[in-house]
Amino acid sequence: MKSHTKAEILKATADIVRVNGFHSTGIEELVTAAGIPKGSFYFYFKSKEDFGLQLIDHYIDGIIAWAERLQNDTSRSPLSKVRAFFDWTFTALESNDFKGGCPIGNLSMEMADVSESFRQKLEGAFAAIKERILALLKEARETGEIPDYLDIAQLCEFVVGGWQGALLQAKVMKSTAPLRAFEQIVFDRLLKGDNTGDSGREVPQGER
Amino acid sequence: MKSHTKAEILKATADIVRVNGFHSTGIEELVTAAGIPKGSFYFYFKSKEDFGLQLIDHYIDGIIAWAERLQNDTSRSPLSKVRAFFDWTFTALESNDFKGGCPIGNLSMEMADVSESFRQKLEGAFAAIKERILALLKEARETGEIPDYLDIAQLCEFVVGGWQGALLQAKVMKSTAPLRAFEQIVFDRLLKGDNTGDSGREVPQGER
Repeated sequence: MKSHTKAEILKATADIVRVNGFHSTGIEELVTAAGIPKGSFYFYFKSKEDFGLQLIDHYIDGIIAWAERLQNDTSRSPLSKVRAFFDWTFTALESNDFKGGCPIGNLSMEMADVSESFRQKLEGAFAAIKERILALLKEARETGEIPDYLDIAQLCEFVVGGWQGALLQAKVMKSTAPLRAFEQIVFDRLLKGDNTGDSGREVPQGER
Repeated sequence: MKSHTKAEILKATADIVRVNGFHSTGIEELVTAAGIPKGSFYFYFKSKEDFGLQLIDHYIDGIIAWAERLQNDTSRSPLSKVRAFFDWTFTALESNDFKGGCPIGNLSMEMADVSESFRQKLEGAFAAIKERILALLKEARETGEIPDYLDIAQLCEFVVGGWQGALLQAKVMKSTAPLRAFEQIVFDRLLKGDNTGDSGREVPQGER
């Protein structure tokens, strides 16, 4: 019962922190959203920082669960799984009117320089995502979906950065343009071997 | 005298907000950093929000000044100017032990969803950067430095996003790896026509 309730508190507060940030969200707001008395908050969390660190675990659990579902999806090629992973986050942002964005990215911008505990937790969260993306990129290399001249580890670093930047731009612009630019340039240009747009993947209209 | 002093206040407080964020930085901290009495702060700025919006102008002025210096540098090719623009920000981040990162990106993550005034100001700031990058990319297309199959407007959107994501990742990881991945994949892979690494630009070691 205890751990169930803690998970419920994290679930109920996740969106407030994602949209408003960690510093701006007060304990009052958190307990109101969770529908619990303040005492319960401190029963489950030692401090607001402790809450924040456990919230990062909550966010990353959801992201990793999606990555693993994709990994086990035998109907898709390895590279299309990578694309589907990013696309899932883009669709979520769009359907939420571009509000919020990536909670891990947001907290990184806000907290990485002001709390070493947060920085380490956030670095670990990104490392967990990169591990899954890298595994899929390696599979894609083996099946010939990624040209030989691209270094897979560097590519992984690059696409995770590009993904985060696209989410940030979309959040500021309230537009899908940065998301589409990321997907089309990475998957329809960079990761094609011949750069002609005729590699078998569909080339979106209006791109040339 | 008045405008000179306002510029000095913005200059003296710019780094605190860049590292600690807008919400976490109190007026007390700002006036202490600027060495002014609290009353002076409210003489120059109507509110903390007004200060924040003018601080974005201060940041963007510095970035645009650098972009324009590059634009007028006749010793570089258009594409190498784009690379130098990003490289300037990467070098600044590295030399600051990866602390701070891009103030416009940080404020975007923190403020875009909580204040429409900030969001509009930040969108305008990125638009000013993109305008300069796009002009250089167009020049590069004309001089044959960018392959024909890449859409220049989309490329601009993509590289600005990728740049921001690389800065975010470097800030969290305290590592140059995301910065190098961005530079090498964009300039030595994506923007080369033949993808062999032999287009005349230097290909960094250990990349293949």
